[in-house]
Amino acid sequence: MGLLGLDIGGTKILGILYDEDGQEIARQKRKTKAAEGIDVVMNQVFKVIDDLIKESTSKLEGIGVGVPGLVDAAGTVLFSPNIPFKDFELSKLIKKRYSVPVYVGNDVNVAMYGEWKHIGNETSRDVLGMFIGTGVGGAIILDGILYLGQGSAGEFGHMVVSADGAYCGCGAQGCLEAYASKTAIQKYIEKQIGKGRTTLLTELLEEDGVVLKSSSLIKAYEKNDALAIEVIDRTARYLGIAVGSLVNIFHPDLFILGGGVMEAMGSILLEKTLNEAQQHAMPGLLKTVAFSLSEMGDEAGVYGAYQLIKSKM
Amino acid sequence: MGLLGLDIGGTKILGILYDEDGQEIARQKRKTKAAEGIDVVMNQVFKVIDDLIKESTSKLEGIGVGVPGLVDAAGTVLFSPNIPFKDFELSKLIKKRYSVPVYVGNDVNVAMYGEWKHIGNETSRDVLGMFIGTGVGGAIILDGILYLGQGSAGEFGHMVVSADGAYCGCGAQGCLEAYASKTAIQKYIEKQIGKGRTTLLTELLEEDGVVLKSSSLIKAYEKNDALAIEVIDRTARYLGIAVGSLVNIFHPDLFILGGGVMEAMGSILLEKTLNEAQQHAMPGLLKTVAFSLSEMGDEAGVYGAYQLIKSKM
Repeated sequence: MGLLGLDIGGTKILGILYDEDGQEIARQKRKTKAAEGIDVVMNQVFKVIDDLIKESTSKLEGIGVGVPGLVDAAGTVLFSPNIPFKDFELSKLIKKRYSVPVYVGNDVNVAMYGEWKHIGNETSRDVLGMFIGTGVGGAIILDGILYLGQGSAGEFGHMVVSADGAYCGCGAQGCLEAYASKTAIQKYIEKQIGKGRTTLLTELLEEDGVVLKSSSLIKAYEKNDALAIEVIDRTARYLGIAVGSLVNIFHPDLFILGGGVMEAMGSILLEKTLNEAQQHAMPGLLKTVAFSLSEMGDEAGVYGAYQLIKSKM
Repeated sequence: MGLLGLDIGGTKILGILYDEDGQEIARQKRKTKAAEGIDVVMNQVFKVIDDLIKESTSKLEGIGVGVPGLVDAAGTVLFSPNIPFKDFELSKLIKKRYSVPVYVGNDVNVAMYGEWKHIGNETSRDVLGMFIGTGVGGAIILDGILYLGQGSAGEFGHMVVSADGAYCGCGAQGCLEAYASKTAIQKYIEKQIGKGRTTLLTELLEEDGVVLKSSSLIKAYEKNDALAIEVIDRTARYLGIAVGSLVNIFHPDLFILGGGVMEAMGSILLEKTLNEAQQHAMPGLLKTVAFSLSEMGDEAGVYGAYQLIKSKM
């Protein structure tokens, strides 16, 4: 028996075939070629799947997929920011071609489900995942099941943390994402440099090209660069406000923080975030919640996709 | 068959005995006598139950209870703000005396469960309830089941809506409750009057005694009093921010708004709240959620307690 996990990203598609014990049988990676249109993208997807089937002697029993964007319960991708999917019946199409059960979910939801299966244990059933990357996403797992509400649940990046606050890409004001995403960090640094502040980040920004790498930010932080310290403190501040609010709302067993920004800054950012969350969680509540950094990096999505199709069978 | 719903409040205890179809058989009401200590309170509770049993010929099959404060999964009241319950095994005690299944839950959770059973239908399975009274409370019903997390879930009053914002009774800064509760409204009006503003509320406040009635606020609002309009707009503003955030987090089927403040101001406050929420919910999301004012007033608690014990049997 084999189950296939697939992570369709904006730039690459990663597929891993797992055996019944969750051991990797084979993996395949291809470029998404999102700019070349939907037919080319689907061709790449099928090639990844076909190649994985060829590499295995065990029968394919199901396919799990994570994809950026809004996905409905039927596995139709309503909208994707990076791939030309629009009301696209992705699940139906894959099911038709391979005649196996298919699960399609949002990439952050799927990846956080994977992290939970990797990190969590049987006592952590109510789990929140916050993903801090270019934007801020989230996932809600309740009693061990991914909770989606009517489909879009878990948009932690668009919780308001500051009325009358910064404008967000979504058009609203004061969203967490407008303060604590990679985009927000970049914007804040550029603004401060524009004001004429002296910082190691000016040079690092030039070295990195247009967008500062999280690793560069950490480098400047470790050299006690005032602006680097300030921007990390600011990020942690707003993350902590959101984490505290979410603890008051959900009182979960486990809270996983992940994504590029969180993974690069690791325990430095986590510790500062929890210090701030302590100020906002109801008295005594925070210490009842376990916190963890994500651990799987780029493989969380494909592993979560595998775990989700497994859970559906 | 009879099931008993009990609402133990800070000032009164209301009990209603229901038949198997949810029809009221009998009701009893007594003062809580919270100031006279725990034994007196429990004596009052037992009298309400005993009297209800006497009035009925059908066998008592279970008792549901709502109580202000923090209640754990075993029905132990860890803490109550109004009644001298402290790590008090309320469920165990009632169960021992009457030898029937007992459910004890937090009053806001229980009341909102009652409102959902009253208002909702089979298509509304994921439901949020926000209760705007002296403080702001909440309840989360997911797939038709009251969600409690580790016990304290649903503390919507302690979501941060404004970083660096007003201080809240909980000790934190910027909580919704510090902006949109009866207490916050009173505080804001007193501050504005203290600044020398002319308003109809000055006189109404004197008539009402120490605390302004919500009905007085509405009266001044209808007479176009500038401060009354301002304070209602301000309340709606912060409620809307929280409602928008919660829609982004849960994408629920139904959102019930209730409590004394909301019930008194009804559609005026609801409409303004939803206008603000529209600014913060993700594009297109708000219109997929049904909104309703609570409808049961003081009877929501006892009805919810009945429905909860029914659901457990």
